[in-house]
Amino acid sequence: MNSHIVTLNAGSSSIKFALFQRKENEVSMLASGLAEMTGRDRHIEAHDAAGATLQEDRWSQSDGSSFHDEALRRILSWRGRALPGAEISAVGHRVVHGGVHYDAPVLVAGEVLDRLRALVPLAPLHQPHNIDGIVAARNAWPQARQVACFDTAFHRNHPFVNDVFALPRRFYAEGVRRYGFHGLSYEYIARRLAQISPAHAAGRVVVAHLGNGASMCAMKNGRSVASSMGLTALDGLPMGTRCGQLDPGVVLYLMQEKKLGAGEISDLLYKESGLKGLSGLSHDMRELEASDLPEAAQAIDYFIFRIRRELGGLAAVLQGLDAVVFCGGIGENSRLVRERALEGMEWLGVELDHDANRANAEIISSANSRVRAFVIPTDEEQMIARHTFDLAGG
Amino acid sequence: MNSHIVTLNAGSSSIKFALFQRKENEVSMLASGLAEMTGRDRHIEAHDAAGATLQEDRWSQSDGSSFHDEALRRILSWRGRALPGAEISAVGHRVVHGGVHYDAPVLVAGEVLDRLRALVPLAPLHQPHNIDGIVAARNAWPQARQVACFDTAFHRNHPFVNDVFALPRRFYAEGVRRYGFHGLSYEYIARRLAQISPAHAAGRVVVAHLGNGASMCAMKNGRSVASSMGLTALDGLPMGTRCGQLDPGVVLYLMQEKKLGAGEISDLLYKESGLKGLSGLSHDMRELEASDLPEAAQAIDYFIFRIRRELGGLAAVLQGLDAVVFCGGIGENSRLVRERALEGMEWLGVELDHDANRANAEIISSANSRVRAFVIPTDEEQMIARHTFDLAGG
Repeated sequence: MNSHIVTLNAGSSSIKFALFQRKENEVSMLASGLAEMTGRDRHIEAHDAAGATLQEDRWSQSDGSSFHDEALRRILSWRGRALPGAEISAVGHRVVHGGVHYDAPVLVAGEVLDRLRALVPLAPLHQPHNIDGIVAARNAWPQARQVACFDTAFHRNHPFVNDVFALPRRFYAEGVRRYGFHGLSYEYIARRLAQISPAHAAGRVVVAHLGNGASMCAMKNGRSVASSMGLTALDGLPMGTRCGQLDPGVVLYLMQEKKLGAGEISDLLYKESGLKGLSGLSHDMRELEASDLPEAAQAIDYFIFRIRRELGGLAAVLQGLDAVVFCGGIGENSRLVRERALEGMEWLGVELDHDANRANAEIISSANSRVRAFVIPTDEEQMIARHTFDLAGG
Repeated sequence: MNSHIVTLNAGSSSIKFALFQRKENEVSMLASGLAEMTGRDRHIEAHDAAGATLQEDRWSQSDGSSFHDEALRRILSWRGRALPGAEISAVGHRVVHGGVHYDAPVLVAGEVLDRLRALVPLAPLHQPHNIDGIVAARNAWPQARQVACFDTAFHRNHPFVNDVFALPRRFYAEGVRRYGFHGLSYEYIARRLAQISPAHAAGRVVVAHLGNGASMCAMKNGRSVASSMGLTALDGLPMGTRCGQLDPGVVLYLMQEKKLGAGEISDLLYKESGLKGLSGLSHDMRELEASDLPEAAQAIDYFIFRIRRELGGLAAVLQGLDAVVFCGGIGENSRLVRERALEGMEWLGVELDHDANRANAEIISSANSRVRAFVIPTDEEQMIARHTFDLAGG
């Protein structure tokens, strides 16, 4: 008999979901979809693996029922009609923060949910919605087991120096550490690289996950040793609307000179900064690449500059480099970003193959390049599904 | 006739001062000293170039007269007795912030002082005292010209990407930029390196100024192209009591979860963090190196880790490296820090000569090392004196 699970990635105003089955050891996606809320309007859409629409539905907020609960009820009823024979044995959740406890996915039972709630202060913009998703999934599939898969888990065994901030020690003890994020993506890439080129996967690798969120990860032998992100998803590379690396004195300046409160500063740094803030145009790299505005070009310049600087810094952590991998929406699709991130990097052993890069090939370094450069599509849902089958699959 | 000038480095509770003369093109220090306040106690001490005590004096605060005014009155009267024939033609001031206007030292005249006052919000802990020093020096030597020498000036021609934060553009326009500091030290090192090894000075150089304050600077052909410091003196490397690189989300956490105000956060990040915070023992590298505490060792580990990561990042900015220079109290004296900062850096072309490093030699890389590593004592006072003679010397 086939085993089925659902994966959920629940944010404040959207839920990504997918249905997976496992046959023997093959995990494959049968369908995926997105539920979104805009004001009082709700929308849900699901497609099969070939892209055909399976479900589309709109509704308005009804008081007394949460967005998460209603969306899951619709996913449930659609799934019942679409695949009447398939029992859902488990639901796998993307959870942004696993704190210091979790260096692997975990079955949500006993005190787990309380522990996840205790981490809300470390990720106030994401963690509460991830937890809402778990609670809603329990209501929707009472018989299924719930699995929490953490964006931080892959990074949890960093050496101390990669984990600590130079603050008084009590902050480290209470959990103010460099957790790093996008761990499900990096874990997927580490596994894929081990299939594509085991020798490189066993070496010193920097992976650039460049999407609307963006970070970089240094890996040795398939394990994370450092990340460009810190306590929160704000640090490191600039992102669509997030600032990335910032002098902490800038935050003091915003408090002392601009008289901004925590909520205003949070909105500024999470929602109004990054590519959007610098360009004044868009958070979307495709729009910036298509624009003639000098500010759009400068935003791209800065994005690439920080990638290059981080690449050098992470190479220093690894004491040299054997491979670099691009993934994420920008990493997989922007020839321009990849080309400019790697040009003039011969000192590091990287020589780009421009034709291969333009063709979006899997290997974009030249045959003579000491360091091999890869483009590998990432798949966080696949990673969540695998963990969920492994921990709780029927 | 010989020309004489005084240099002043005025902080909140201390004033470093020195007396220089110029004969032909030789600038030499005749005497130097320090005035300090602790509570109501005041102390001033001056030495000649050989270290012999020229003056020592203690007094208590008298109401109605500022520490800066009183200290300068004593420097003035001592100078009159010690060198009765020497006329002070100018006073050179170290000023932490020159904002976007000043990429070189400037005679303090006309609107200059107003411009420096307008920069106080960018450096609230240092700039007001630097300005107090200028005002006090005008009172003490009304006939002398005042020269402001900026810690930011050497960095003022950075490319845009090295200068900007990924915030909405209005912040860049109003001066929220990566100024970089320790510019007088870097300028001095650039000049000395051009004397010691012109070929290296013309190349790609990273200078690590490692003192109680610490930063790193990437130079190309003797000009700064990037710095590890940002808007304020908080960013980049961890320092004696300053945090260095910090996820801006940590500051939000301190506001939202710890309910700390701007003053408390500022005190925490400027005065309780860095080596002191991490070790729980001391801000002083010498004490940490002498300690058996594991926390002391971890603080050193973290300091070195950040130097290495910054070295890789700045090498990426320069597209490779020809030389690395250590200076500042730690850079000039800690064999351990230099050794550990450079070990395993062969991938970058650096091969340490351990014997030369232990001997504190000027060149500490091996004869085969592609990248040359130098130890060059820095001298910010000398740099201020040269600028002051050039702009205003009699």
